[in-house]
Amino acid sequence: MARFFHKSSEKAGQLPGTPVYVGRSKSEAVAIETYEFDGEALDCAEAVSLDDVQAPQDSDKTLWVNVDGVHDVDLVQEMGTRFGLHPLAIEDIAHTGQRPKVEDYGSHALLVLRMLRWNESDDQIDDEQVSLAIGSSWVLSFQERKGDVFDPIRDRLKTNRGRIRKMGADYLLYALVDAIVDHYFVILETLGDRIEVLGEHMAEDPNKKDLTSIRHLKRELLFMRKSVWPLREVLSSLQRDGAVSIHEETAPYFRDVYDHTIQIIDTVETFRDMVSGLMDLYLSSISNRMNEVMKVLTIIATIFIPLSFVAGLYGMNFDWMPELHWRYGYFWALGLMTSIGGGMLVYFRRRHWF
Amino acid sequence: MARFFHKSSEKAGQLPGTPVYVGRSKSEAVAIETYEFDGEALDCAEAVSLDDVQAPQDSDKTLWVNVDGVHDVDLVQEMGTRFGLHPLAIEDIAHTGQRPKVEDYGSHALLVLRMLRWNESDDQIDDEQVSLAIGSSWVLSFQERKGDVFDPIRDRLKTNRGRIRKMGADYLLYALVDAIVDHYFVILETLGDRIEVLGEHMAEDPNKKDLTSIRHLKRELLFMRKSVWPLREVLSSLQRDGAVSIHEETAPYFRDVYDHTIQIIDTVETFRDMVSGLMDLYLSSISNRMNEVMKVLTIIATIFIPLSFVAGLYGMNFDWMPELHWRYGYFWALGLMTSIGGGMLVYFRRRHWF
Amino acid sequence: MARFFHKSSEKAGQLPGTPVYVGRSKSEAVAIETYEFDGEALDCAEAVSLDDVQAPQDSDKTLWVNVDGVHDVDLVQEMGTRFGLHPLAIEDIAHTGQRPKVEDYGSHALLVLRMLRWNESDDQIDDEQVSLAIGSSWVLSFQERKGDVFDPIRDRLKTNRGRIRKMGADYLLYALVDAIVDHYFVILETLGDRIEVLGEHMAEDPNKKDLTSIRHLKRELLFMRKSVWPLREVLSSLQRDGAVSIHEETAPYFRDVYDHTIQIIDTVETFRDMVSGLMDLYLSSISNRMNEVMKVLTIIATIFIPLSFVAGLYGMNFDWMPELHWRYGYFWALGLMTSIGGGMLVYFRRRHWF
Amino acid sequence: MARFFHKSSEKAGQLPGTPVYVGRSKSEAVAIETYEFDGEALDCAEAVSLDDVQAPQDSDKTLWVNVDGVHDVDLVQEMGTRFGLHPLAIEDIAHTGQRPKVEDYGSHALLVLRMLRWNESDDQIDDEQVSLAIGSSWVLSFQERKGDVFDPIRDRLKTNRGRIRKMGADYLLYALVDAIVDHYFVILETLGDRIEVLGEHMAEDPNKKDLTSIRHLKRELLFMRKSVWPLREVLSSLQRDGAVSIHEETAPYFRDVYDHTIQIIDTVETFRDMVSGLMDLYLSSISNRMNEVMKVLTIIATIFIPLSFVAGLYGMNFDWMPELHWRYGYFWALGLMTSIGGGMLVYFRRRHWF
Amino acid sequence: MARFFHKSSEKAGQLPGTPVYVGRSKSEAVAIETYEFDGEALDCAEAVSLDDVQAPQDSDKTLWVNVDGVHDVDLVQEMGTRFGLHPLAIEDIAHTGQRPKVEDYGSHALLVLRMLRWNESDDQIDDEQVSLAIGSSWVLSFQERKGDVFDPIRDRLKTNRGRIRKMGADYLLYALVDAIVDHYFVILETLGDRIEVLGEHMAEDPNKKDLTSIRHLKRELLFMRKSVWPLREVLSSLQRDGAVSIHEETAPYFRDVYDHTIQIIDTVETFRDMVSGLMDLYLSSISNRMNEVMKVLTIIATIFIPLSFVAGLYGMNFDWMPELHWRYGYFWALGLMTSIGGGMLVYFRRRHWF
Repeated sequence: MARFFHKSSEKAGQLPGTPVYVGRSKSEAVAIETYEFDGEALDCAEAVSLDDVQAPQDSDKTLWVNVDGVHDVDLVQEMGTRFGLHPLAIEDIAHTGQRPKVEDYGSHALLVLRMLRWNESDDQIDDEQVSLAIGSSWVLSFQERKGDVFDPIRDRLKTNRGRIRKMGADYLLYALVDAIVDHYFVILETLGDRIEVLGEHMAEDPNKKDLTSIRHLKRELLFMRKSVWPLREVLSSLQRDGAVSIHEETAPYFRDVYDHTIQIIDTVETFRDMVSGLMDLYLSSISNRMNEVMKVLTIIATIFIPLSFVAGLYGMNFDWMPELHWRYGYFWALGLMTSIGGGMLVYFRRRHWF
Repeated sequence: MARFFHKSSEKAGQLPGTPVYVGRSKSEAVAIETYEFDGEALDCAEAVSLDDVQAPQDSDKTLWVNVDGVHDVDLVQEMGTRFGLHPLAIEDIAHTGQRPKVEDYGSHALLVLRMLRWNESDDQIDDEQVSLAIGSSWVLSFQERKGDVFDPIRDRLKTNRGRIRKMGADYLLYALVDAIVDHYFVILETLGDRIEVLGEHMAEDPNKKDLTSIRHLKRELLFMRKSVWPLREVLSSLQRDGAVSIHEETAPYFRDVYDHTIQIIDTVETFRDMVSGLMDLYLSSISNRMNEVMKVLTIIATIFIPLSFVAGLYGMNFDWMPELHWRYGYFWALGLMTSIGGGMLVYFRRRHWF
Repeated sequence: MARFFHKSSEKAGQLPGTPVYVGRSKSEAVAIETYEFDGEALDCAEAVSLDDVQAPQDSDKTLWVNVDGVHDVDLVQEMGTRFGLHPLAIEDIAHTGQRPKVEDYGSHALLVLRMLRWNESDDQIDDEQVSLAIGSSWVLSFQERKGDVFDPIRDRLKTNRGRIRKMGADYLLYALVDAIVDHYFVILETLGDRIEVLGEHMAEDPNKKDLTSIRHLKRELLFMRKSVWPLREVLSSLQRDGAVSIHEETAPYFRDVYDHTIQIIDTVETFRDMVSGLMDLYLSSISNRMNEVMKVLTIIATIFIPLSFVAGLYGMNFDWMPELHWRYGYFWALGLMTSIGGGMLVYFRRRHWF
Repeated sequence: MARFFHKSSEKAGQLPGTPVYVGRSKSEAVAIETYEFDGEALDCAEAVSLDDVQAPQDSDKTLWVNVDGVHDVDLVQEMGTRFGLHPLAIEDIAHTGQRPKVEDYGSHALLVLRMLRWNESDDQIDDEQVSLAIGSSWVLSFQERKGDVFDPIRDRLKTNRGRIRKMGADYLLYALVDAIVDHYFVILETLGDRIEVLGEHMAEDPNKKDLTSIRHLKRELLFMRKSVWPLREVLSSLQRDGAVSIHEETAPYFRDVYDHTIQIIDTVETFRDMVSGLMDLYLSSISNRMNEVMKVLTIIATIFIPLSFVAGLYGMNFDWMPELHWRYGYFWALGLMTSIGGGMLVYFRRRHWF
Repeated sequence: MARFFHKSSEKAGQLPGTPVYVGRSKSEAVAIETYEFDGEALDCAEAVSLDDVQAPQDSDKTLWVNVDGVHDVDLVQEMGTRFGLHPLAIEDIAHTGQRPKVEDYGSHALLVLRMLRWNESDDQIDDEQVSLAIGSSWVLSFQERKGDVFDPIRDRLKTNRGRIRKMGADYLLYALVDAIVDHYFVILETLGDRIEVLGEHMAEDPNKKDLTSIRHLKRELLFMRKSVWPLREVLSSLQRDGAVSIHEETAPYFRDVYDHTIQIIDTVETFRDMVSGLMDLYLSSISNRMNEVMKVLTIIATIFIPLSFVAGLYGMNFDWMPELHWRYGYFWALGLMTSIGGGMLVYFRRRHWF
């Protein structure tokens, strides 16, 4: 439940624009790292203190500030003030558990995304809110906790591979969004493998545990869908509205991420179809087995009932019952029973009843 | 039923624009309170009489008039006339039980919302129509009865916290809408807790009472949905049409409430999915148990039927039945029965029939 | 069936624009009444002959002509010609059984609506096509038969209440549409009461007759829906396209009717949900009862089968069966049966099987 | 199947714009008839040869050429060339089995429609592709075979009834489309009668043959739907895009056909609902009967099982069984059985089990 | 699974715009063929080396380069660079498993399509990504492996049939797209035949194998749908956006392909309906047969239970049971049994229970 709905009733009645942290762990220390670069030089620093972070004066350079931990609301507030973020943007950053969205505040914009990772220990998808604020020459990224999918970007910045150092803040924004979206494919692959394994297992011997697995997969797909569907809208409005100053040469990259999102949505829907198919398979196999059991048992009962009747017949105590005194009366009775039982068996078999 | 459809047939045939009270209790006294303020000063008065309420002359100040109780139709009519409300607006205020909507009458606009609260005693959501009329420098709010979710706003006005005193009528309107929408999260949380508790209970031992709980939750979610869905349209058209003179600096706040509404709708839909899931769980567990019962009983019957046949066999009265005269005939019969019964048990067990 | 689809095959192959009456009773006499008015004076006449009806010369006055009975095709044709109606408009008036629609012919427009009333004797909704033609200063209304929901309007015209006499043809049109739509609430209330009563009855003792009631309600709701859904489109296009010369001050009134229509559609959909809920309740209660019956019967059978086996056992005729000769053999057998039966009962009870 | 999907794989790999006949019978002779007219004169000729058909020089006159049989691809090709049809238009005419569509080629346009007729012998709907090409002063109609629904138009042209002779090619086009659409109502009526008769029959005694009838009706409705749904789009785009030079005075007529199409779609959907309702009725009546059977049989079995137990009890061979030696022991046993059986019957009846 | 979702997690974290081959076989050799033509001359070469391929200088000529095998990423990269393709276009070409899409990069555009073929050996649809890059005077086509549906086009180019040699790159693009789409009809026909055969078989004797066939058809239709649905969007946006410089005279041809796509989608949906219908038929026939079995067995049991009771009755050992000593007591008992059994049979038959 907690993954599907973050408690935010405590926020009700609060002053709008007041950042209140809504989320999980409040214990981890907050870590800030900065990357300031242009085509030629890169200044990067880890574990810097808040005092050293300034909105860049020199607009030729691009600044990326990454913050791990948004539970330190004062820090988020102070950071926001220095970069001139709108109070509602600051509130959204602190208030994790938002749907993906983009909000344009004129001088800057805020993108809220969900970063997904597969949690091996809990065997489920973990999600984390990543808020990306973009100004003319800077990008701020806020994450709930340490650990992310941005290492390739850090690497590319440091080694100056590709065009990331040559292009501005909008391309950096793209790179961050792309990293998050690309990681969805990893999740999809995990889920796809699970579905395949489950399908193969159920083709042989479906049992009650499979039902739990199906429900589990269903829930994870529902969870993933919740994160991905709104993303499509976000990326589409990013292209359409000209919100966020995206240069013409960066536009195809954003369209590319958009296409990936569509593909992910498509695959999630296909997976949901497949899981529904597995559910149907399970239900029909259970009902089939039940029917088989009932049928066999009913056939057994049906065959013996006439036999018992014959036995009961010759158990009657009438004075005059000639068969009882026949020489081979007993064999006659046994033969009668055998032929009735056999006849029924043959008849049932012929009608393909078992 | 009453919550889903307010009787309004008595209105049929009435003069359009005639305010007719359609709603519940008509007994409570009507209470009026006024707040007139600008950045510097605040005049607030409770339990004022209608005669003291005037549309403000001085357009630098903002006036908020809150009316508890719309069953006094004459008072609503008189108030409307003083502020120049359109006759249809006045009719809508008195005629509670409306869908959320916004109506622009040029010089002023009317917003109709549903204020929801959890009624502990009836264990259901209570709703109340809140009509908000907004002019250039005033906001009128009409509620069906005393008690609302506006206390934090009153508090902020009095203590001059946040920007509420510095901004105009449109920000006040926003604050009122925001307070109502924020309270929906409280309802959602209550419903979420219910669903979670029910889910845990049903995982252990689903029974008939759970069915009632599921139906109850379903109905409350349907009820909530009815109030929230149209709200989305209302807030979207508020942004789009430029209805109501919303200043540029207030616009992001309305977009923020809009985002909350989307999130609430999302959560309501997720909850509905979950409740459907519980229903399916219930049905399948009931049908499973039924199947189990039938299977066990059928197996018992099936095992005894051949045994009874054997007993019947040796209860026959043929003159010549050698087994009857065997020394250990009785043990032979018992042994035969035991091996038939045991064989069937082993066979059934092997085929996983029980 | 007849209510859902009016035979119109006889029209196939007809000259377009030829009015052919398609409808029910052709026997009633046609009645014409006229109301000519401005803010000061009102000329009203009932049962006038066609010859006295003229399109008004004096455009300051507004003329309303109401015709009960459209089976007199010649009269409709002649009336249409006098007011310059388009041939297709005349055809639509005569050809009842149309979906609600609005058609703009430049100088005039035609609105087709369905007037609904609850027919107590047949216990179903009766519908009737009302065609409203509007020109610059006149409104023609054509009904299928006598009796309508326009009496309050006649009354207001005569007593000069409200603004109906002061405003033009567009407001009159609004008043007529509003009267029809307002009456839908009366139907809804009847249906709502039925649903409520049925729901209460079924909570206690659902039986086969309830199924008929459910089907009946379902059909009536379907029928109502067919009349109301297109109305929404009609009213929305009326506002949007500027078809029909609607003055600015009348526009809010049409928006108001539009809102009512939305509310009616909403309620119809809610009712349909509720009726579906009742259907589910019925089906599940039937299937529950069936299951209960089968379970109890199966339990009885299951308990007696082992007992009969014991009886059969001691009915065997072996020479040597020591129990038969025990002093308390009979009691032993009875005791054995009692403990088997009792044990099974206890076991079943413990597993909550009954 | 053939009705739902015309084999067109043989076309794959063909030169685009090459007319290839795809359809059914290739044997019938091709027949051409021409109508050239203005308000004053009419030249009409049947069974003309291709050589006599020329695109009209005199644009004051309107020419209608009707071709029965499109399997003579060369003729279609030649005709198309004379009137300057686009190669793709010619291909579409020959390639029957198309969805209804409209294609604008600048100087002329092509409308493809499906003409439906009820085939009494096969008891199903027959369809045929009618392609209507319209230029500034001519209309070409291509049908698959002889026999159509255009006789009333021929009649009106010859007798100069209505305005058909006075208006241009666009009105002629409308008349042809209207004739086709009007005939759909005849089909609807046939289907409606079938549904009604079936409904009445099933209310009394539903049997297996009804299931076949339901499936049959379902398929015919699906087939009809396939022809009518795209028509709506066609007619709507005809009005919207100004494709085909439709004069202002003809526009209302096309809107009228559009309205008829909507009404047909509406009715088809209502019929589908009704047929689904019949299906549900059938299924529930079958399942009801099955349940009844099972219940009665189970009750019989249940009543006799305890009675048989009693009989078995007194069939035991214990030495000491006092009842066996009672004077009225036999009556005692019979009485015991009667009271057990009767008691159970009373109990079952009281619980409304049968 | 592999057909529905191509593993692309290995791509996560890669530099955007880096072509990474994602697909199946990497072994086949890459083959390049070129066609350079205008209305008069054609230069065509097979198995050319990469070095001989140059973007055409002379814009009067049109160049088509077809590449079989995109796993040689360097070759694709080099080719792309020579024709000035956007890095993302090159990435999309190498990264097979994309949804159909069109991407406009200003000077050139990229169309991604799925080419389907029926794989007889695996009895399923094979798909392959075909990427078509179009510039002002050239078209590049990239396929995953040898073998395609373009032979008729090669033929037309060589023999100069139709207008393909006279028109530019846009017509060539159309011809390629048309060839792919036309081949979908071949697949549809195969599927249609399967459905028909299956339907006929199931009408006679539905069995478990049919269920597998139904699931198989369902999956293939789902697969086909995934390829065709997005195509509609692609072709529609191609017409709408003016992406790709399509000349006016080519436009009708693209509209024609668009119509074919709609028709294919239509047919796929109809087929899906039909397959669902077969599924329902299967399920209902299985459940019918099960019901029949249970009913017959229950009837047999029910008839014999009272008979056994009679037998048990006269097996009782009461001292005084007059019937036992009647002369024809035995016949009396047999007669009683016969009449009970016969009576029940008659009763059951009369109520149509078997």
